[in-house]
Amino acid sequence: MSEAEVQISCIQFEPRIGETEQNVATSVSLIGDAAAGGSKLIVLPELCNSGYVLNSREEAYELSETVETGNSIAAWRAAAADMDIHIVAGFIERQDDRLYNSAVVLGPKGLIGTYRKNHLWNAEALYFERGDLGFPVFHTPFGRIGVLICYDGWFPEAWRLLALQGADLVCVPTNWVPMAEQPANSPAMANILCMAAAHSNSMFVAACDRIGTERGQPFIGQSLIVNPNGWPVAGPASVSEPGTVTAVCNLSAARRQRTWNSFNQVMRDRRTDLYPEMLGTPTRPGWY
Amino acid sequence: MSEAEVQISCIQFEPRIGETEQNVATSVSLIGDAAAGGSKLIVLPELCNSGYVLNSREEAYELSETVETGNSIAAWRAAAADMDIHIVAGFIERQDDRLYNSAVVLGPKGLIGTYRKNHLWNAEALYFERGDLGFPVFHTPFGRIGVLICYDGWFPEAWRLLALQGADLVCVPTNWVPMAEQPANSPAMANILCMAAAHSNSMFVAACDRIGTERGQPFIGQSLIVNPNGWPVAGPASVSEPGTVTAVCNLSAARRQRTWNSFNQVMRDRRTDLYPEMLGTPTRPGWY
Repeated sequence: MSEAEVQISCIQFEPRIGETEQNVATSVSLIGDAAAGGSKLIVLPELCNSGYVLNSREEAYELSETVETGNSIAAWRAAAADMDIHIVAGFIERQDDRLYNSAVVLGPKGLIGTYRKNHLWNAEALYFERGDLGFPVFHTPFGRIGVLICYDGWFPEAWRLLALQGADLVCVPTNWVPMAEQPANSPAMANILCMAAAHSNSMFVAACDRIGTERGQPFIGQSLIVNPNGWPVAGPASVSEPGTVTAVCNLSAARRQRTWNSFNQVMRDRRTDLYPEMLGTPTRPGWY
Repeated sequence: MSEAEVQISCIQFEPRIGETEQNVATSVSLIGDAAAGGSKLIVLPELCNSGYVLNSREEAYELSETVETGNSIAAWRAAAADMDIHIVAGFIERQDDRLYNSAVVLGPKGLIGTYRKNHLWNAEALYFERGDLGFPVFHTPFGRIGVLICYDGWFPEAWRLLALQGADLVCVPTNWVPMAEQPANSPAMANILCMAAAHSNSMFVAACDRIGTERGQPFIGQSLIVNPNGWPVAGPASVSEPGTVTAVCNLSAARRQRTWNSFNQVMRDRRTDLYPEMLGTPTRPGWY
């Protein structure tokens, strides 16, 4: 082990809508396999205990859990403690009858934190509130980790805000859907966005997608782990088959590689004297 | 012609260091070929009249021009007028004995504007001042265009600031150099950054690189034009050979495609309530 090495696995599988107990059991079994193989940080897909394509607010509510009392969270928490690992897993969070598309970060000693998806995609707006916890960075024995969920990854601001807080690794529970016009033999655009973000922020990215077609909506797999140069070190996994992608990542590399030469360090090269006037201000009304 | 179509060409060639007159003559000849083929907007590489690998401040100064009096600018201006086209071209700009890594934007009626590279790469810091003109967007008969130069493209803030001002197209005069660890058969990271930026901002990108090895520094070609979905519509060109990549682009598509479904419009989905606290503030001193 050098500096800050950790073996990471993204467990790509197919949750079944509404079959929460079975989905969690499947995930815990696969987590056990990965942990037995030496992985210390496991990333699961977005909404991986409940399924994604909800039919109603009532269904979303029925499938939601609180972090404190949820059965899925309890099962994953027990797995993290029993196997001495960290787990990042997507689920429907309920608090005060509000629902969020969230991910929980668990360690051997219990709850580390929660992230609530800040950028909701399409019909999610019918069931969930937008995230209200900002872009937190969580401290672990092996380094600093941030979490983004699916469409969050379309916003360079989100990656950058995590990098500016020193994140070495961003875990991405996701349910990627097909993009228009993808040419044959091209990496998926979702993969390209992860690669660009990893490179331009000098961070590891571990993105765990689901597979299968749910209520007519196909998902695209292709889970992957990207190094701070922006290149995949594991995956992309299959478009349609379950599979676990695993890589040993030296998170220290993320910090070292931010310095590129005598003059350039990516975070310090930012022209913050030029950015403030627009990046933080709302899009002008009526503007396209 | 529908809506706002324009045929764009990126002219990838090999400037020779210090041979300004010959470099401009070569570029004007190639511009003529592209214009004869119907192109109305021509993008040339970064520092394409002077060459890139400078040996001294004195050499940089000798090769610099003012926008008002420079011979290269005059030649390109004449070409734009004669051929009824627009040209975006990189050159060493001098003003009040300050030097900038700049690009001029010319139209049939003359000078439209100048962009000065805001993020300097490596030894450029020895010769050039950082840009002090912000991220301007220029208006043309076919739409709004922005300009970024090479390392600027590593900063998602730069693309976003252009998109937030309504840019339909970003022209990128560049001198890309090899990146560490690129896997065989992968798109170049520079291409990936263009694709990610085009997709997540819904803009066209026309990036014109140079080729050849200058004073020991290799360049990587692979000029390309990317549509607002993020996919190449022309190129990438050769790694080592000259070549012009050309595409007919409907710039209106950039604005239409920002709306993805009933709920999502990429510019309006930005969580500006969460961004301001950090994006515009300087990196903390001592922070890696």
